[in-house]
Amino acid sequence: MTSTTMDTGKSYHKQATGAAFETVQQHATDQDITLFAGCFCPFVQRVWVGLEYLEIPYKVYEVDPYKKPQELLELSPKGLVPALRLNGYVPPRALNESTVILEYLEDLASTSTKRSLLPPLSDPYARALVRLQSDHANRTLVPAFYRYLQAQDPDAQIAGGKEFLDAVETLVGLFERADVEVGGTGLWKEGGELGLADILVGPWLFRATNVLKHYRGLELPRGPKFDGWLNRLFQHPAFKCTCSTEELYLDSYERYAFNRPNTSQVANAINAGRGLP
Amino acid sequence: MTSTTMDTGKSYHKQATGAAFETVQQHATDQDITLFAGCFCPFVQRVWVGLEYLEIPYKVYEVDPYKKPQELLELSPKGLVPALRLNGYVPPRALNESTVILEYLEDLASTSTKRSLLPPLSDPYARALVRLQSDHANRTLVPAFYRYLQAQDPDAQIAGGKEFLDAVETLVGLFERADVEVGGTGLWKEGGELGLADILVGPWLFRATNVLKHYRGLELPRGPKFDGWLNRLFQHPAFKCTCSTEELYLDSYERYAFNRPNTSQVANAINAGRGLP
Repeated sequence: MTSTTMDTGKSYHKQATGAAFETVQQHATDQDITLFAGCFCPFVQRVWVGLEYLEIPYKVYEVDPYKKPQELLELSPKGLVPALRLNGYVPPRALNESTVILEYLEDLASTSTKRSLLPPLSDPYARALVRLQSDHANRTLVPAFYRYLQAQDPDAQIAGGKEFLDAVETLVGLFERADVEVGGTGLWKEGGELGLADILVGPWLFRATNVLKHYRGLELPRGPKFDGWLNRLFQHPAFKCTCSTEELYLDSYERYAFNRPNTSQVANAINAGRGLP
Repeated sequence: MTSTTMDTGKSYHKQATGAAFETVQQHATDQDITLFAGCFCPFVQRVWVGLEYLEIPYKVYEVDPYKKPQELLELSPKGLVPALRLNGYVPPRALNESTVILEYLEDLASTSTKRSLLPPLSDPYARALVRLQSDHANRTLVPAFYRYLQAQDPDAQIAGGKEFLDAVETLVGLFERADVEVGGTGLWKEGGELGLADILVGPWLFRATNVLKHYRGLELPRGPKFDGWLNRLFQHPAFKCTCSTEELYLDSYERYAFNRPNTSQVANAINAGRGLP
């Protein structure tokens, strides 16, 4: 699980490719919601999948997150994507933080498209189990991904790989608990539908299958239930249409894999032993 | 803002005092929900205030969080308080993580007591502003509290104080934004009611007025709006009835203030530059 590739100096991409490129093209006209996006950013992908699944109209505005346009800085104090501009207000309003935006979209859909990323309000315990999964994804699995990818010496890479796989295993344990206690949640349940936890964790597991595999030799756990879940997630129309081609991810994450200075605010926070920005 | 007190070797308390002691006594009979509590723990206080405000029946079970009873370990994988045991199920079910529990209580109240910690679903943007405040409290302000309190050398204490006060200032900025954009949220709004962000941040601001003041000489910012908010929060019946006497907090946090080894899982995570457990 150690890296054998060399830093070739590749730069990040600024425009989506493949299926994601098509989706950007289809969302080029003005709407009440503008999504400020960066093509390789997994936090952006969360919101993008949410918009698609909840069937909320939106326009995509792809920005270079390292050459932040003034329009983005006006929306997001840290200049981070994803950010939403809500054009229905005068002056327009703004939201940032992927988890906050997803909860907003969930609330919005509850009175418009009637779609939802959570079990129904009549089952608060099932909703709580999804929130436990989501909390684990945010606070443990996602930081472990970056610590692993940014680890440079072999011992740290081995420890990082173990930590990331432990986080995946704990997530699976939470999914299995939901099977036993409420008959399953999200896509882990065969025949289930895309849910909040699937969306919150999906972009990093997707990058585990390309970026971590390429730069760290990671193999995700195998098994019929896990494979079935990953397959349902990655093939879900709302997820699939936000994915670029593999080359985009490999190129864009080379900076992280070699822990180049000033790779991103996320990378800096991990290097400093701080929470994600 | 540097510490001048000496480590006198005081131990943490195991039982609430003052108003909180009375409240424990009043919640000693079996209910569908048992709250596993530790008397000085701010994460516990969040849930406790939520139960009180939402008027959900509960029993309090005070545990020594460092001599975890088997009953707690069965509920909470990390052995952390707060945990809920849901006695209405056979076998009983469990929930942990203060933020997850609060969302659960919010969902539960929506179909029972009809009380709520959030703006109505008809105003998704106002709800999102409260979630932005909450996200900031969880990810920035709370870790800053511990980094500051555990900092030992004077430079680190000065940096810690600045970081904590910056986090308070950012929170105030988010409250002010809600004033402008949606006419105010939670108790920041004069005449408002206790809200999710007030509860999520309240226990640490309360400990800022006793623990940080005593061990670090911290003075919170002053001003009519800030003072008014703090006063409404600390005097709110649902908050006040969960507060012990000052001595309990000063004694219980001495371990943190001198960063004694093995103070807690929270302290260890901060020392290791990791997210909170």
